[in-house]
Amino acid sequence: MVIDSHEHIMFLTKTQLEKMDAAGVDRTILFCSAPHPEKAGNLSELESEMDTLYRVLAGDNSKKDNIRRLEKNILEVTEAIKDNPGRFLGFGSVPLGLSLEETQEWIETHITANSLCGIGEFTPGNEQQIMELDTVFQSVQNTRLYPVWVHTFHPVTLDGIKRLMALCEKYSEIPVILGHLGGSNWMDVIKFAKGHENVYLDLSAAFASIATKMALVELPERCLYSSDAPYGEPYLYRQLIEFVSPNQTTAKMALGENIEKLLDSLGLVS
Amino acid sequence: MVIDSHEHIMFLTKTQLEKMDAAGVDRTILFCSAPHPEKAGNLSELESEMDTLYRVLAGDNSKKDNIRRLEKNILEVTEAIKDNPGRFLGFGSVPLGLSLEETQEWIETHITANSLCGIGEFTPGNEQQIMELDTVFQSVQNTRLYPVWVHTFHPVTLDGIKRLMALCEKYSEIPVILGHLGGSNWMDVIKFAKGHENVYLDLSAAFASIATKMALVELPERCLYSSDAPYGEPYLYRQLIEFVSPNQTTAKMALGENIEKLLDSLGLVS
Repeated sequence: MVIDSHEHIMFLTKTQLEKMDAAGVDRTILFCSAPHPEKAGNLSELESEMDTLYRVLAGDNSKKDNIRRLEKNILEVTEAIKDNPGRFLGFGSVPLGLSLEETQEWIETHITANSLCGIGEFTPGNEQQIMELDTVFQSVQNTRLYPVWVHTFHPVTLDGIKRLMALCEKYSEIPVILGHLGGSNWMDVIKFAKGHENVYLDLSAAFASIATKMALVELPERCLYSSDAPYGEPYLYRQLIEFVSPNQTTAKMALGENIEKLLDSLGLVS
Repeated sequence: MVIDSHEHIMFLTKTQLEKMDAAGVDRTILFCSAPHPEKAGNLSELESEMDTLYRVLAGDNSKKDNIRRLEKNILEVTEAIKDNPGRFLGFGSVPLGLSLEETQEWIETHITANSLCGIGEFTPGNEQQIMELDTVFQSVQNTRLYPVWVHTFHPVTLDGIKRLMALCEKYSEIPVILGHLGGSNWMDVIKFAKGHENVYLDLSAAFASIATKMALVELPERCLYSSDAPYGEPYLYRQLIEFVSPNQTTAKMALGENIEKLLDSLGLVS
């Protein structure tokens, strides 16, 4: 089965399914989204959409606004899954900056009760937000083990990635998916993942085919195909993996088997 | 004609030609290269190769070492062109930090005398190096107009890009190719290019298909296909342009017509 392990929910759902069909993707793991760049036909429209994301990344929104936004976004994801249970799975957002008890309650109410199978995307825009992830990891440890998906491309710096690596070591039972392979820091990220069994490599936002190739050569069992749609195209990212994989077995693992095995091992898919 | 407007010279040349053939690329513009990542079979070998590049980017090498390296690298490019005149064109490196007279002499001796058709890649690692580009632009103005190719992805910052934009305005007759579309600053770069006719957008190192699409929608006449091989795959980058172009006319312009027209207009290809 081909699984796109990271797409943001798009409107219309029909467009999302068409892109999956064109790429030969059987199932997609949906993530929440504040902006909807798929609606933009030109740069000016896209800028308006992206301003929403940049404010979130910069941590400019109030805690209350963020919570309301995340609740709405999770609802969008769970409704898309309900309408297309054979095609979609979902990860759910968790607000940063809540107390341990509030975070645990959020996970039970918004993730577990909705049968979502992971947590994220976290897009920590500053060091404080990276530190707040500790509370999320602790809550996951205390409630139920879920994979945690963290954006590690720009604007997350190498320093931020190193703090995240420390969390991966502190909570070594929690699977952590390093989103976008660390961006420009992909070599450090691959090396770290090789030494830490709970760390997975997301292959979206690839800017150098050689980085994707090296991840697949070095750690075939923990590479995960994703397109990050609507930012990336599911068809092109699948092609990338098929083109640079050292062999077909590796390509199949990255294109679906690895994520399926991970979710199975945690009892998160039926 | 399909032209990959930016590949680094690879060893063996046979491998480079095979990749071009597989991608349906008629001609490639070769650029010098210090490292040769195409030789690396795994991450450890790649790290050794890339250390060379990182030292260059960080400006760690002595002026004398850099000059000797660039002379050797230009010779490699001109020999590959001599052996395959129907398939290769070339851009030549120019050292930063020389005097105006030395730079002009370098351009005459190493670029013009070798029938190269452009200057670069410049990979300015710090602000001082961006400022030293002024001497290069002045020399180009004084000798013969060549397109100048500048890396604008990480580690070049938005501040560095803004200084480069100031040079594009100061030397408005010199075509400037903004390599890798500005990286994370792609929106700023596309907007700037729209207002400045001498600015071209290189589409390699694309980490978001949507950025490539927006460049093609907004400025079809100044988008240039390239793979940045061996970092990117010529086949995959061609596919990207064909997949996201709003129409076939735009794709054809980006895949070869635009760069051909630019070089023709400066009398740089026969």
